[in-house]
Amino acid sequence: MVSRRKTSDVIIEGSIALFNQSGVSEVTTNHIAQHLDISPGNLYYYFANKEAIVRAIFAQIQSQVETLWNEKDKPALFLLADYVNVVFNIIFGYRFFFAELTLILRRDDKLRADYIRLQSRFKVELAELFLQLKTAGILRGLEEPSQRMAMANSVWIVTIYWHSYLESAPDKNQPSRELLNHIIFLLKPYIEALYLDVVQGIFTSFLEARGQ
Amino acid sequence: MVSRRKTSDVIIEGSIALFNQSGVSEVTTNHIAQHLDISPGNLYYYFANKEAIVRAIFAQIQSQVETLWNEKDKPALFLLADYVNVVFNIIFGYRFFFAELTLILRRDDKLRADYIRLQSRFKVELAELFLQLKTAGILRGLEEPSQRMAMANSVWIVTIYWHSYLESAPDKNQPSRELLNHIIFLLKPYIEALYLDVVQGIFTSFLEARGQ
Repeated sequence: MVSRRKTSDVIIEGSIALFNQSGVSEVTTNHIAQHLDISPGNLYYYFANKEAIVRAIFAQIQSQVETLWNEKDKPALFLLADYVNVVFNIIFGYRFFFAELTLILRRDDKLRADYIRLQSRFKVELAELFLQLKTAGILRGLEEPSQRMAMANSVWIVTIYWHSYLESAPDKNQPSRELLNHIIFLLKPYIEALYLDVVQGIFTSFLEARGQ
Repeated sequence: MVSRRKTSDVIIEGSIALFNQSGVSEVTTNHIAQHLDISPGNLYYYFANKEAIVRAIFAQIQSQVETLWNEKDKPALFLLADYVNVVFNIIFGYRFFFAELTLILRRDDKLRADYIRLQSRFKVELAELFLQLKTAGILRGLEEPSQRMAMANSVWIVTIYWHSYLESAPDKNQPSRELLNHIIFLLKPYIEALYLDVVQGIFTSFLEARGQ
């Protein structure tokens, strides 16, 4: 099973699955090796410890986020669709990372510094996306850069802490739909009436593509 | 030092201070006993373990929150001022609880159940406050109960995860002012223009009373 793909990729993928299932605190490198049917020694050849695996997973997240910043000359609505796709795929695909964010960052100063850098950049770029949507006539209001940053902050906080929140909100049975509705609710006062259906459609088609 | 007040209260107070300072995961019952200059045996007489102390602290939080629901016939603006006061005093006074919420709830199923109950009630009551503010002509829009619940959810998530967020947002040097500005930003599209200054004043006077 391990032969065709790069072993390090297989380890990362298996670790993501186990972390998402049981929580990163509960999973050891031995669990991961056992799950993948490889020897612990083989695993250590690629990753010195669990921390190294988590860092490699974060590097995946980072490179997916960075794809958003390479095609900024797209029309604003397409850019919005890219953000919805990339961000929600990350939030649900790597949910352990966000559910245990505080702990993970406390344990690894290097990762924490990298995370802070990515977060700062992301919020600036998101505020910039709001400006592009505004220039395209899709958003209104949010005149001041500080308002666009505040909106970026709100969307960011609700999104990254969504999994933590779900752990104490047992009534949520459609987590991705609920989060998307929530983000639309935050944006709604600033969406031009004419574009409301279009923007909602962008969020809905993401859910439909996931069969939800 | 321990003689005048009830020993259990002194233990709770000292624990809150230590937890806020070092994080609940880092503090042991021995640290607490040492900090208060009492014997571990004396501490165990009142609290079997750290979990029991955390539960007693949560009971304090709960009873402070519940004061909000005993005086609901006040004018809506006074009620809003009460919410601002009580909620932000709790968020900043017991910050360890919210900074480590996910972990604390994972470790104690009983506490988790109590927390979920309090959270559900709080969000319903907050949505009810929005309705009262609407009836009083202070808020507009938010016609549907689902919209008021969505707003209650947004305010709730941003508020309780604020400390977690601060850990990875080192640029925030006025945490309580930033959080209050953030909540005002969320509410703003729904505040009647006439009342904007009054509502902002309610938030600001909370900060001034704290000397910030």
